[in-house]
Amino acid sequence: MPGNSIGHVFRLTTWGESHGPAVGCVVDGCPAGLPLCESDIQHDLDRRRVGQSKVTSARREADEVQILSGVFEGRTTGTPISMVVFNTNARSQDYDDIKKLYRPGHADYTWDMKYGFRDYRGGGRSSARETIGRVAAGAIAKKLLADVGAQIIAWTAQMGDLHAQEIDEAEIERNVMRCPDAAVAAQMVARVEQAKRDRESLGGAVEVRARGVPPGLGEPVFDKLQADLGKAFFSIPAIKAVEFGEGIDAALMRGSEHNDPFVQRPDGSIGTTSNHHGGMLGGISTGEEITARLTVKPLASIAQTQQTVDQQGTPTDIVVKGRHDPTALPRLVPIAEAMMALVLADHLLRQRLARWGE
Amino acid sequence: MPGNSIGHVFRLTTWGESHGPAVGCVVDGCPAGLPLCESDIQHDLDRRRVGQSKVTSARREADEVQILSGVFEGRTTGTPISMVVFNTNARSQDYDDIKKLYRPGHADYTWDMKYGFRDYRGGGRSSARETIGRVAAGAIAKKLLADVGAQIIAWTAQMGDLHAQEIDEAEIERNVMRCPDAAVAAQMVARVEQAKRDRESLGGAVEVRARGVPPGLGEPVFDKLQADLGKAFFSIPAIKAVEFGEGIDAALMRGSEHNDPFVQRPDGSIGTTSNHHGGMLGGISTGEEITARLTVKPLASIAQTQQTVDQQGTPTDIVVKGRHDPTALPRLVPIAEAMMALVLADHLLRQRLARWGE
Amino acid sequence: MPGNSIGHVFRLTTWGESHGPAVGCVVDGCPAGLPLCESDIQHDLDRRRVGQSKVTSARREADEVQILSGVFEGRTTGTPISMVVFNTNARSQDYDDIKKLYRPGHADYTWDMKYGFRDYRGGGRSSARETIGRVAAGAIAKKLLADVGAQIIAWTAQMGDLHAQEIDEAEIERNVMRCPDAAVAAQMVARVEQAKRDRESLGGAVEVRARGVPPGLGEPVFDKLQADLGKAFFSIPAIKAVEFGEGIDAALMRGSEHNDPFVQRPDGSIGTTSNHHGGMLGGISTGEEITARLTVKPLASIAQTQQTVDQQGTPTDIVVKGRHDPTALPRLVPIAEAMMALVLADHLLRQRLARWGE
Amino acid sequence: MPGNSIGHVFRLTTWGESHGPAVGCVVDGCPAGLPLCESDIQHDLDRRRVGQSKVTSARREADEVQILSGVFEGRTTGTPISMVVFNTNARSQDYDDIKKLYRPGHADYTWDMKYGFRDYRGGGRSSARETIGRVAAGAIAKKLLADVGAQIIAWTAQMGDLHAQEIDEAEIERNVMRCPDAAVAAQMVARVEQAKRDRESLGGAVEVRARGVPPGLGEPVFDKLQADLGKAFFSIPAIKAVEFGEGIDAALMRGSEHNDPFVQRPDGSIGTTSNHHGGMLGGISTGEEITARLTVKPLASIAQTQQTVDQQGTPTDIVVKGRHDPTALPRLVPIAEAMMALVLADHLLRQRLARWGE
Repeated sequence: MPGNSIGHVFRLTTWGESHGPAVGCVVDGCPAGLPLCESDIQHDLDRRRVGQSKVTSARREADEVQILSGVFEGRTTGTPISMVVFNTNARSQDYDDIKKLYRPGHADYTWDMKYGFRDYRGGGRSSARETIGRVAAGAIAKKLLADVGAQIIAWTAQMGDLHAQEIDEAEIERNVMRCPDAAVAAQMVARVEQAKRDRESLGGAVEVRARGVPPGLGEPVFDKLQADLGKAFFSIPAIKAVEFGEGIDAALMRGSEHNDPFVQRPDGSIGTTSNHHGGMLGGISTGEEITARLTVKPLASIAQTQQTVDQQGTPTDIVVKGRHDPTALPRLVPIAEAMMALVLADHLLRQRLARWGE
Repeated sequence: MPGNSIGHVFRLTTWGESHGPAVGCVVDGCPAGLPLCESDIQHDLDRRRVGQSKVTSARREADEVQILSGVFEGRTTGTPISMVVFNTNARSQDYDDIKKLYRPGHADYTWDMKYGFRDYRGGGRSSARETIGRVAAGAIAKKLLADVGAQIIAWTAQMGDLHAQEIDEAEIERNVMRCPDAAVAAQMVARVEQAKRDRESLGGAVEVRARGVPPGLGEPVFDKLQADLGKAFFSIPAIKAVEFGEGIDAALMRGSEHNDPFVQRPDGSIGTTSNHHGGMLGGISTGEEITARLTVKPLASIAQTQQTVDQQGTPTDIVVKGRHDPTALPRLVPIAEAMMALVLADHLLRQRLARWGE
Repeated sequence: MPGNSIGHVFRLTTWGESHGPAVGCVVDGCPAGLPLCESDIQHDLDRRRVGQSKVTSARREADEVQILSGVFEGRTTGTPISMVVFNTNARSQDYDDIKKLYRPGHADYTWDMKYGFRDYRGGGRSSARETIGRVAAGAIAKKLLADVGAQIIAWTAQMGDLHAQEIDEAEIERNVMRCPDAAVAAQMVARVEQAKRDRESLGGAVEVRARGVPPGLGEPVFDKLQADLGKAFFSIPAIKAVEFGEGIDAALMRGSEHNDPFVQRPDGSIGTTSNHHGGMLGGISTGEEITARLTVKPLASIAQTQQTVDQQGTPTDIVVKGRHDPTALPRLVPIAEAMMALVLADHLLRQRLARWGE
Repeated sequence: MPGNSIGHVFRLTTWGESHGPAVGCVVDGCPAGLPLCESDIQHDLDRRRVGQSKVTSARREADEVQILSGVFEGRTTGTPISMVVFNTNARSQDYDDIKKLYRPGHADYTWDMKYGFRDYRGGGRSSARETIGRVAAGAIAKKLLADVGAQIIAWTAQMGDLHAQEIDEAEIERNVMRCPDAAVAAQMVARVEQAKRDRESLGGAVEVRARGVPPGLGEPVFDKLQADLGKAFFSIPAIKAVEFGEGIDAALMRGSEHNDPFVQRPDGSIGTTSNHHGGMLGGISTGEEITARLTVKPLASIAQTQQTVDQQGTPTDIVVKGRHDPTALPRLVPIAEAMMALVLADHLLRQRLARWGE
């Protein structure tokens, strides 16, 4: 019941603090027989890693994953897969000045309210380093999904008022913003550089798609596919909105516009002629593309002097040192993919439980 | 693990189909000693009930709740609270014509893909009648919250392009739209009446607020308060977007704008001077108002001829008979409140587990 | 997390108090497509029912089950199966005298310590009537198991120093003791009649067997098949010991005696030449018969004057009125079967999750 | 849901194989503020360790624990506690001869039935090395319990037909058998040495006690304290029987003998004059000593030639090489303590959820 696990059948537990010895995760419930090695996982960890470009923070770590259990002779065994990444580049002294202060927009105050004290170094457990375990586990989930023909892709769709206009998926990994519109990507980079000079951070949005998802995934009532996806996405730090299908624009539509007519596809299967529904009806996948959009706030760490209070409530100024991203967007892309993959893999397995006598 | 339960400590399981003998729920984990009687629950069930006004559907049932267990001499005993509402007004024959057809925008097709067959009468388990159990349980959750000084309120904020401009909370329950702006409410009613004539349905949005929530509720990683709220809200049928705090507008903000400065309040406690964060930081409540906005699609049942296929994929026209709401909005208000209450009650109890030695 | 549910995939929640309006249960996770009707369930409820014979208590109720959800046109739909039995014969006034006293051997004192107060009528939730929901759900589990060729059988093996010597399974349901040895059954009946005259209760033991269970059921570490069975059996009121295979006699054996050699059976499958292991190795079923033995204490309710204290600790005498069984044994038989069936059905479904790529 | 976790609030997940890089665990749900360091844990790991004496196997490893997360400045933070022990002394080549054979009494066959293949080196995940994580987590649980005045103690009570006659607790850790009767311990050691010469293994029993447990722990129905303890004990490899209180002897007793009269203790609290019930009534602790007895089979690994089959069912002889204990008993003592501690710590925290309004 404690809150560091997600998934029912394909279940991830993450552990670790930003400036502790290591971060890691345990994946329990991965079926036996899936080919798996460390390089399958390292690829997405490298995509998630900081220090990749001028738009992300300066902390540089290899983030090299080790698989400690659950794999034998290149295949999963059905036992828990324990993965660890040792922390190698933590500069804890950056945080000494602020250990008794509440950084605006951060979790310092709420952790103190919850637990009475906190590991203040680098955000402790609320650091983005916690997402290493998610991305590592997500890579395994993606392998399961790929085996049934499902792929997940995400990209930076918006930063401030800049919106990707063209969706050229081949472009995504070519630019540091992971934006599928090269021209807009260039504008975004310029904005990030300006924001750095302004000591500011910037909000935006990421789109996530899942293609080739079999129909029938999702549980009808509380574990609807969009409910579990919504939880997974809102568990990512800094996410303020999640939309599926038409999202907030659905408010403006009429039933006859929003309803997607069913048709038979040439291969005999059933589909819809449009996809306002975003790939899920009644909480269950239709087989159409699952479409989600996540809005991320501008990150709380900015290199400006801000007003706050200390633990006793005394007003004070604060300057947050350390190495911070001006935008979460490019790194959010693999994290969003991982969360989508984790939920879909869980429901892919749960679907095995739905029917008797077949 | 099956998907008909929500909550970890304060745990709700709902059961029942639209045209079965009854719908109901079991609430497990309500602490012993809470005063409770059926009238505490009936009030919100009456608010949820259909047939209340010209803007909602014509099915009229008393929806009278019976408590079958878990209460003794007017107080909860700590044992499961079983509640039941018998179905009295089901017209199953309305559905005979469509039992082999897939209604656009409905869950018929996806249930067949999942389970191989379905109870087609009135949507079966995917009917809005399932939410009776949620609202009943939510009323208990509200009682727990009220005891610690927390209140939940929701309202219709938008229908199509009509937005509530003024938020007069006293107005909400005075009009059939549950809109806090009387003038806009009147416009909404006119739109609904027109939609009925047009055989259409209308989308919109509901705002939900929780006030007086103690700081410290929520678990830091996967069970963040916004993650569990996000799941709960997306488990409501027809919800397409969930936003907290600034929601999608956070994409347009800079860190220095979005960060809410901490200050000491006159009573010595710590708060923020603004509430862009929506009452949660790092997934944990700050004590500020929790603010959420849910976008609901136009309901799928419309009295127009639509194109679809049958179970064999043969194209056909469909006319959905039965009694349908042109808008989900007024009934969504108590349902959204219930889901907010259920999640907060769960985390209120979970917070008892956070600290040692105090 | 609250303690009124058991099972992970095939999940039972029971609710209800002895003298409340009803008792019942919700079974969530039963796959869609299983043929099911009320008479499937009523049979085992009738076996569990009191008032069946001179060896059991005098409370007479029909215990007629109603299925309120989850079944459509004679088959399970994959949605929760809600079942209810209304209480019709509760004589609450029997308990007025003892509501402030702690009956020896009963849960009165511990419930007060846990919850601060309790429903004292007929034991409230700790009444054996709670097992109605177990037996009803167990009947569904048995149907699933029967479909894969597995049967469960239980019998009274011991009462006091009387042990069944012969195991004639056809005899079990022929005598009121459910003892497979007719001669010993007659002796047991005589003992029970004497115990009634002595105002005593008697302990004993039940054996439970599962045959035809496929190999491979059970999870290796904490959810070993014997661990989940052990939990299920120890959740039955009054059970003081659970043994598998050789049970306590394993302490007296040497490895070369206890190890069961593997052989190939004529049909090509692999089995063991003996079954000291009781059908499970490493927590996973071998395909050999699963053998368990449950020891039940003499029931706490005896019609003698006993010494106790009241809620203030004041010493007092107590005479427990009401209608009580001198022995739990015959009714324990269907309850033990139900618990075995529930655990096996859960693991039968969980086994669907074990492998990838087949 | 996967089976490598135990506990609801204080939740342990173990991972790791005998011959993989490491074994370890994650403890989620330990409250913030408990003083904790590695030496708190190392003590019990050292007690569990092999190579301690002539009665246990020859594999010698330091089993040095590292805490990788969840502790800051000497106190738990409320976040997951990740602990790891690297495997340093695995001789995998010992197992090459038997990788296609099914060792009698072992889990080889059942793992193949479940997963299709297995890590055959040293028993893989079914190795006793898995219990390192249990003992490490149990040490944390013991710290929580000690803070409320509860202690756990266990000892070897029986080996073959040798029974401890005197219970001198000070003696337990003085002899290699962990038997509280020095004279019987000496006899047991002689038997073990003979068994080694005979290439045999020996069964026995361990008693476990918990003292100072507050009344009120345990959930009434399925999560009865004895049910959760029963599950925990039966999850230990090789356990064949679990008894509480009078255990199997309860079958021989009458109600008037078995019922323990309630009395007021000198300090005003309520207790019982005898403890046939073993510290739990209705599944909830009474405050009296919790008494359990676990029977362990003779270990399956014996250095004799045995008959078995290979994966194709072909009959063959097998000689199990490697380093094996002739008896599990002394090492079972700290493992049994750990399981008792884990369950009690979980219910100690769960008890915080039982009441409202106090």
